[in-house]
Amino acid sequence: MAFTRPEPPYYAVIISSKLDAGNLDGYAAMDKRMGELGREQPGYLGRESLTGADGRDLTVLYYRDAESISAWKQHPEHLEAQRLGRDQWYADYHIEVARVERAYGFNRSNLT
Amino acid sequence: MAFTRPEPPYYAVIISSKLDAGNLDGYAAMDKRMGELGREQPGYLGRESLTGADGRDLTVLYYRDAESISAWKQHPEHLEAQRLGRDQWYADYHIEVARVERAYGFNRSNLT
Repeated sequence: MAFTRPEPPYYAVIISSKLDAGNLDGYAAMDKRMGELGREQPGYLGRESLTGADGRDLTVLYYRDAESISAWKQHPEHLEAQRLGRDQWYADYHIEVARVERAYGFNRSNLT
Repeated sequence: MAFTRPEPPYYAVIISSKLDAGNLDGYAAMDKRMGELGREQPGYLGRESLTGADGRDLTVLYYRDAESISAWKQHPEHLEAQRLGRDQWYADYHIEVARVERAYGFNRSNLT
């Protein structure tokens, strides 16, 4: 809820992931760098993210359009981070690219 | 990761929500009932869900198609649950209906 969404359509990248706790050398620094670099990319809108007690992470990244997502996926630094993620850091991940067609909400503090 | 997704396209309902901690009479029973009833609906595929220490919940519900989502939204028992949620239980929520266009994943335990 920490950012203002535009009117649909826009895009969401839904990421369910779990780190491999035994092999996290370099992960924290790369995660920080990718967070900073990712926020600077054209079309990036914001994110929702939660991590459970068991290490399962559920993150939704929001983008203006599908082209912004493809461009970020091909960014050279991000490609290297993806390679290290598969080779070392992640036990598993599942990523979905989705087009948001409708959105609505409610906030009690906005009621009069 | 607890269910097998079909090949895209399929649908995701992304729900970011926070309960109003001061006003949860009847919520637990209704949440349980809606979970059970929701799983029985035509087109329901599965869910990913996490709740943070601050009470923020991030849930993604998956469906075969948009019609399944609309039908569940209009289910009489679910309509009553939605009304009580707005009147009593939720501090805020934000709901997005999105069409999953692409999906891919990685699981270290599947590597040889």
